[in-house]
Amino acid sequence: MRKNKNNKPIWGTRIKKNASTLFKKVGGSLLIDKLLFKEDIEGSIAHVEMLYKQKIINFRIKNKIIWGLKRVNNEIIKKKFKFNYDLEDIHMNIESRLFELIGEDAGYIHTARSRNDQVITDLKLWLKKATKKIIILLDSTNSNVLKLAEKNVMTIMPGFTHLKNAQPISLAHYLLAYVEMFKRDKKKFKNNLEFLDENPLGVGALTGTSFKIDRNYTTKKLKFKKPTNNSVDTVSDRDFVLDFLHSSLVCSLHISRIAEELIIWNSDAFNLITLNDKLVTGSSIMPQKKNPDPLEYLRGKTGTFIGNINSMISIIKGLPLSYFKDLQDDKELVFKSNDQLKISLSLLNDVIKNVVFNKKKMLSLAGIGFTTATDLTDYMVRELQYPFRKAYLQTAKIINFAEKKNKKLHELELKELKMIEPKLKADVYKILDLYSSINSKKSYGGTSFENVKKMIKKAKIKND
Amino acid sequence: MRKNKNNKPIWGTRIKKNASTLFKKVGGSLLIDKLLFKEDIEGSIAHVEMLYKQKIINFRIKNKIIWGLKRVNNEIIKKKFKFNYDLEDIHMNIESRLFELIGEDAGYIHTARSRNDQVITDLKLWLKKATKKIIILLDSTNSNVLKLAEKNVMTIMPGFTHLKNAQPISLAHYLLAYVEMFKRDKKKFKNNLEFLDENPLGVGALTGTSFKIDRNYTTKKLKFKKPTNNSVDTVSDRDFVLDFLHSSLVCSLHISRIAEELIIWNSDAFNLITLNDKLVTGSSIMPQKKNPDPLEYLRGKTGTFIGNINSMISIIKGLPLSYFKDLQDDKELVFKSNDQLKISLSLLNDVIKNVVFNKKKMLSLAGIGFTTATDLTDYMVRELQYPFRKAYLQTAKIINFAEKKNKKLHELELKELKMIEPKLKADVYKILDLYSSINSKKSYGGTSFENVKKMIKKAKIKND
Amino acid sequence: MRKNKNNKPIWGTRIKKNASTLFKKVGGSLLIDKLLFKEDIEGSIAHVEMLYKQKIINFRIKNKIIWGLKRVNNEIIKKKFKFNYDLEDIHMNIESRLFELIGEDAGYIHTARSRNDQVITDLKLWLKKATKKIIILLDSTNSNVLKLAEKNVMTIMPGFTHLKNAQPISLAHYLLAYVEMFKRDKKKFKNNLEFLDENPLGVGALTGTSFKIDRNYTTKKLKFKKPTNNSVDTVSDRDFVLDFLHSSLVCSLHISRIAEELIIWNSDAFNLITLNDKLVTGSSIMPQKKNPDPLEYLRGKTGTFIGNINSMISIIKGLPLSYFKDLQDDKELVFKSNDQLKISLSLLNDVIKNVVFNKKKMLSLAGIGFTTATDLTDYMVRELQYPFRKAYLQTAKIINFAEKKNKKLHELELKELKMIEPKLKADVYKILDLYSSINSKKSYGGTSFENVKKMIKKAKIKND
Amino acid sequence: MRKNKNNKPIWGTRIKKNASTLFKKVGGSLLIDKLLFKEDIEGSIAHVEMLYKQKIINFRIKNKIIWGLKRVNNEIIKKKFKFNYDLEDIHMNIESRLFELIGEDAGYIHTARSRNDQVITDLKLWLKKATKKIIILLDSTNSNVLKLAEKNVMTIMPGFTHLKNAQPISLAHYLLAYVEMFKRDKKKFKNNLEFLDENPLGVGALTGTSFKIDRNYTTKKLKFKKPTNNSVDTVSDRDFVLDFLHSSLVCSLHISRIAEELIIWNSDAFNLITLNDKLVTGSSIMPQKKNPDPLEYLRGKTGTFIGNINSMISIIKGLPLSYFKDLQDDKELVFKSNDQLKISLSLLNDVIKNVVFNKKKMLSLAGIGFTTATDLTDYMVRELQYPFRKAYLQTAKIINFAEKKNKKLHELELKELKMIEPKLKADVYKILDLYSSINSKKSYGGTSFENVKKMIKKAKIKND
Repeated sequence: MRKNKNNKPIWGTRIKKNASTLFKKVGGSLLIDKLLFKEDIEGSIAHVEMLYKQKIINFRIKNKIIWGLKRVNNEIIKKKFKFNYDLEDIHMNIESRLFELIGEDAGYIHTARSRNDQVITDLKLWLKKATKKIIILLDSTNSNVLKLAEKNVMTIMPGFTHLKNAQPISLAHYLLAYVEMFKRDKKKFKNNLEFLDENPLGVGALTGTSFKIDRNYTTKKLKFKKPTNNSVDTVSDRDFVLDFLHSSLVCSLHISRIAEELIIWNSDAFNLITLNDKLVTGSSIMPQKKNPDPLEYLRGKTGTFIGNINSMISIIKGLPLSYFKDLQDDKELVFKSNDQLKISLSLLNDVIKNVVFNKKKMLSLAGIGFTTATDLTDYMVRELQYPFRKAYLQTAKIINFAEKKNKKLHELELKELKMIEPKLKADVYKILDLYSSINSKKSYGGTSFENVKKMIKKAKIKND
Repeated sequence: MRKNKNNKPIWGTRIKKNASTLFKKVGGSLLIDKLLFKEDIEGSIAHVEMLYKQKIINFRIKNKIIWGLKRVNNEIIKKKFKFNYDLEDIHMNIESRLFELIGEDAGYIHTARSRNDQVITDLKLWLKKATKKIIILLDSTNSNVLKLAEKNVMTIMPGFTHLKNAQPISLAHYLLAYVEMFKRDKKKFKNNLEFLDENPLGVGALTGTSFKIDRNYTTKKLKFKKPTNNSVDTVSDRDFVLDFLHSSLVCSLHISRIAEELIIWNSDAFNLITLNDKLVTGSSIMPQKKNPDPLEYLRGKTGTFIGNINSMISIIKGLPLSYFKDLQDDKELVFKSNDQLKISLSLLNDVIKNVVFNKKKMLSLAGIGFTTATDLTDYMVRELQYPFRKAYLQTAKIINFAEKKNKKLHELELKELKMIEPKLKADVYKILDLYSSINSKKSYGGTSFENVKKMIKKAKIKND
Repeated sequence: MRKNKNNKPIWGTRIKKNASTLFKKVGGSLLIDKLLFKEDIEGSIAHVEMLYKQKIINFRIKNKIIWGLKRVNNEIIKKKFKFNYDLEDIHMNIESRLFELIGEDAGYIHTARSRNDQVITDLKLWLKKATKKIIILLDSTNSNVLKLAEKNVMTIMPGFTHLKNAQPISLAHYLLAYVEMFKRDKKKFKNNLEFLDENPLGVGALTGTSFKIDRNYTTKKLKFKKPTNNSVDTVSDRDFVLDFLHSSLVCSLHISRIAEELIIWNSDAFNLITLNDKLVTGSSIMPQKKNPDPLEYLRGKTGTFIGNINSMISIIKGLPLSYFKDLQDDKELVFKSNDQLKISLSLLNDVIKNVVFNKKKMLSLAGIGFTTATDLTDYMVRELQYPFRKAYLQTAKIINFAEKKNKKLHELELKELKMIEPKLKADVYKILDLYSSINSKKSYGGTSFENVKKMIKKAKIKND
Repeated sequence: MRKNKNNKPIWGTRIKKNASTLFKKVGGSLLIDKLLFKEDIEGSIAHVEMLYKQKIINFRIKNKIIWGLKRVNNEIIKKKFKFNYDLEDIHMNIESRLFELIGEDAGYIHTARSRNDQVITDLKLWLKKATKKIIILLDSTNSNVLKLAEKNVMTIMPGFTHLKNAQPISLAHYLLAYVEMFKRDKKKFKNNLEFLDENPLGVGALTGTSFKIDRNYTTKKLKFKKPTNNSVDTVSDRDFVLDFLHSSLVCSLHISRIAEELIIWNSDAFNLITLNDKLVTGSSIMPQKKNPDPLEYLRGKTGTFIGNINSMISIIKGLPLSYFKDLQDDKELVFKSNDQLKISLSLLNDVIKNVVFNKKKMLSLAGIGFTTATDLTDYMVRELQYPFRKAYLQTAKIINFAEKKNKKLHELELKELKMIEPKLKADVYKILDLYSSINSKKSYGGTSFENVKKMIKKAKIKND
């Protein structure tokens, strides 16, 4: 039977020749899908228990098969299992070993099942676990960002638009932007779980099966929420793969933005951060260099996610129903994006824990570029009752003057200010310093110190 | 003020020179973002009402501005508005006209607001509406598919895997696979609405504002669910754009699969469908041709979605916080994907309504390729108590024999069958015809006629 | 004939119904391909002259048709042509007008020709011209970069790796890197011309034609180099489109790198450049802002090229031979990339002409970060005969010491240097200043001032 | 020195801490770049010989280093080399082993060199070889296609446009379309060699070197054509990587088109080909199935190339000069595309050698769909002197009539033909059969049997 010496595939009777040497080598998926062994065995056990419950196989055979499957599981975990690359995939490897262990009764296992539904079941089971692990990692990332934020509520830095100094800001507030990003990622991964909660097992090759199976039973056993509705769609659908690759990509884009930011901040010109020696590498020729390689790694690896989803998109596009081998690459792409996302998030956590902010430089940079100009405009609107546009205009004139004089706003004398806007009074200086500017942004979501403290507290609770 | 003759932008005092001729031409976004005029005015009115409620502007000014804004709205709707391409964008066009209409008081409108939050508010408002329209279109598409399915429950066709005949199937069952796809799309667009329900208005340029604004008030007015949490994140975030582009892309991928299928079915070799003359075009040189251009259009236009999301991904990747002009392209990409998705879905509906299935050809093709082989295997498992693998092997032998004899399975004589599998009895013929094969697939999600009828009913209810 | 009142397409006899209203609207390509009118008429005239030469049509008809085509050409140029969107494309518009002008004899024009070969001929003719224009634009860009370089041979700046100060460098040398990039782009576009020089005209719909045509004649007339070899390939091939989109993309990537660089240099922290007011825009809320919008535009628009090539790739992938309507999008994608590349290069030229380098800041920044450390290492190798690795090690120790003392390398006293490396002598100071460091890099392609001058001269000659 | 026990990197003096455990694991590139060992050693030997020639190192040291490098080379080839993953990359592994072998003199090897130029030199050397191997593979692919074409000059099949039968065609002519594709690919790879022929060695980290090196010498030694012009550009440029990935992608797109075609031809409905059992796989549940997995593999794997180039594009986009770690992924992407292209081309060759054309089915399918309609039109133009459009119209009427009568064109009686077009004579039947139709397409590049024979001959000569 299956235990053939010459490793012929199951269709050896129908297809007389062995696969071409090359195709045998590259066409098999074992190298990739052996990662699914646990889920494959889990799924097979649920399937066999259902077959017994439905009286399609008897008690003895059920037990024998389950005993065998558990043993295979152990062998693989203990690295005692001999993977046979002549057998196409993990499913055939497990089935083949089962034949060796329990003999011809192993042949009952594939009743009312096809690899088409089997492999999607495996992948969905795996992806549910992986998604949950990523959610945990996102939570712990946010925990670390929040810890850093807590220490930097009062750290003043320039907020940038167009990479130009715009308005002063609390560093903690800046960091909270990252928290929002990862919270959205978490939500997206959670949404994905819904689609992953539909059980493919039992749709057969593409039309269902003539055996009286109970898909609700395996659904419950495997902790899915409900069986899928349409057999043809089930073996054709890879939307859940595209969604996972998309969510991973968006998360990696967030990481790339943070990395880029820190690379710029780490330049000698900005000098806003110092990276712990654990997070820099040197040059082979320039003895002084300390390069932020891990940050560049994080930024560059976003390319992996972009590549992966584009591969999958191109596979799906214009593919008729139902199953084609093209779809086989789904697993490799998912595994790669998942691995890279876990690495990238972990490395980002290393960065977060090992970055030192040069607070002095942050503060001094925040004072450059007339960053409190908007505060002056707002002051005129409030105190002089000017329409915003008029106040904006008057402020622009004052800035032009200050720039010519090479002074900062608060360095202008009152009489200089009055030359341009006679109604200004001495209390204007109160709103021109960085601290006041930040503290005045009390609108919900704004950078005032109080706001920031509240938001940290809120985020910590929600993150739990 | 704003009403300057020479169309200088508001920053004319600070930035002395006009933009380079070329940049003036290409840098403006008016051509694109004028589509947002309604949402822009909607947002401005809510903003102004809030400013009044918070006593930041007075009753008279509020009314004046709202009167002006409504008039602008009317002018645009009635195509009487003169768009000025020297003014960067829709926001500045509206503000400029407001100055003309109500004078310097228009200058109060931008109090406590930046274009950074304004434009995201506009886009989110627009995208909420667009998303809801797409959901409606998906529903009506499924209605049409379901109507077609209802008429074709008993239409027998070959189900394909690897484009080879696999097992006979009800055409309606096949069509229900499309319903599942579009249902998932609908769900994805619905999930997007959550992220679209956070109100950006009031986060200012990037740090919030020093005015005592009430973001909950504008949130309620504009029918958002809550204000966004972090000002820096709010002006930087385009996740909701990426999600929209992704959902649109996945939907277009579904359409491309259906189109490909029908193109193949429309070939002279398959000849499973005939397209109404409304849906074919001819050749300039070959008088006989009737080409399925609309189907190729649907398949090809998937490229638009793939291009759009890749453009946006590349814009976001490695972009530091917070706002950059690069982000400006978000709107064009969203509008293009939205337009194309609406066109593609509408055209697909045209196709669904104008396709004729060649039932006779479907039936005869279903009989080729030993499509009931699995049924024979299942029979042996059930009736002869064979393990599945043994039954599979015996079936393979029978098929090899039939192929050599150039017979179909049911054309083999019982004695011929018995030569290979002696235990077979005459009742085996009952399971070898196409109708029985389909009817036996009673497992949940399977193609049995009864199942299909139930599923259509279920889908019709849910779709309402 | 063609002059039908009701605008029926030519296949009206065979396909009885009009296209669905929607498909009529979206399926036509006129809006896009009317840009090809000149090439279409050019191609038709060559075709007709060949038909006459081969005695397939007579002298009178040839002249009549050519007279008519020239008149159509004039009408379009003078904007007197009425485009009819009910007629699918530019070819049918021109043919239809020809019928109006010269009557039924217009019907001879399509002898031995199909739109399949016609449209590729048009597109290739167009693309040859467009490619040549881009090459000219690349040349003029390099001219402008070279002018800027000439003025900045002696401008000292920090060279960066990992965005950290690495070694001092001549600004002109830095700018010459851009010249190399654009020279490669030019070469790539030139290579593309080879593939564009094969004449598609005469391959018919897909198999050639039964008329005795002379493809060498039209090849010469249309200034192609040779006719294409295989009719099926000719109507299926869009490699020349992919190549154009790739070359454009790579050029845009170069522009994006330059833009990114300048955006960073324009930050308040770097402050290495000042942009002319013509190249900055302001903020709607922050009166002080001068944002480098054109640079961000250049960086962001790279997304357009990425999108376009991905659209085209997805269209080609898995498309069987020979012609399909999916291919129709080739023109829009080519036109868009071509337009954007011309705009981006022109805008970059605006930037190059309007950027002011803050030489003082460049110089002072170049002095930070021990940028002459490698020179010290090289000195030890040369003067002390140390192996490079040993010299590297000793230099590292000296840098650690200097860093602790908060001194620059040349600020260390000789006795301090000797504490770490006793063999150092006073002449070491000669190699520690920025000027000497740059001047010592005399290896071919290095940054020594003399080298840079030579390279500028060389590039200017080659660029002519 | 380098031989440190604890595997500290060379910058251990400057950077005190070890890299974070995670980054150590993922940041190294050894796993990838060890494929470059041969080129790395080749480059180092040329470098060292040049250093000696220029009197930068002495005779003894040169010989010692070269002896050591050759020994390392041998060790790696003989798999006796112990790769140390604590040392970042292949360069450091080789250098470290050199220290073990020859002691501190190994430290002379890195004089006047940086890893920045070293690694690009290695990659370019490698890519030149790889490119040449691909060119050979393309040649042999075309040889195989040509052999197949030679056997099928007289095999008649339907040519398709829009997947509908269009005109009869020689199968050999169809196959020659593939030859054209691969010839273009070959040309593109050849063009790439030009850019690969510029020697990066000697540009140092980014500015050149202060040692009196001779780059022309290493250029000659390493068989490059000339040294690169600009040191900054040299370490930043990855255009040659993008070009390789593009050329590979386009080639893979060609393969995907062929694969798609054959998948369709392999369907039970088309049944135009039979694949040897070596090239099909079975189903786990359907005993009759013979699936064209290798063809689907070829089509699906195009996704790999699409992913790879998109990864690289996203890495380059917006990356400032000069070197960043992001660029490191270039090698993995190149290796993956190269491997996959070699596999795909080889597998395609397997397919070409093992496909059997069902000539009978081809012929009968070619007779369906009025494929000689254009011939009838051409006949009327030639014999009745009709304008093409009039002839087209008359043909359309005849086809409508034939369709109604359910006859093929040549099955219509002369009187039936004359009812529609009275001028038709009996000799019209001569042009209505498939053979005549094909044979009449004698225009250059057309499908006439004679043409095809000539083209095969021509292609065979050129391919040599």
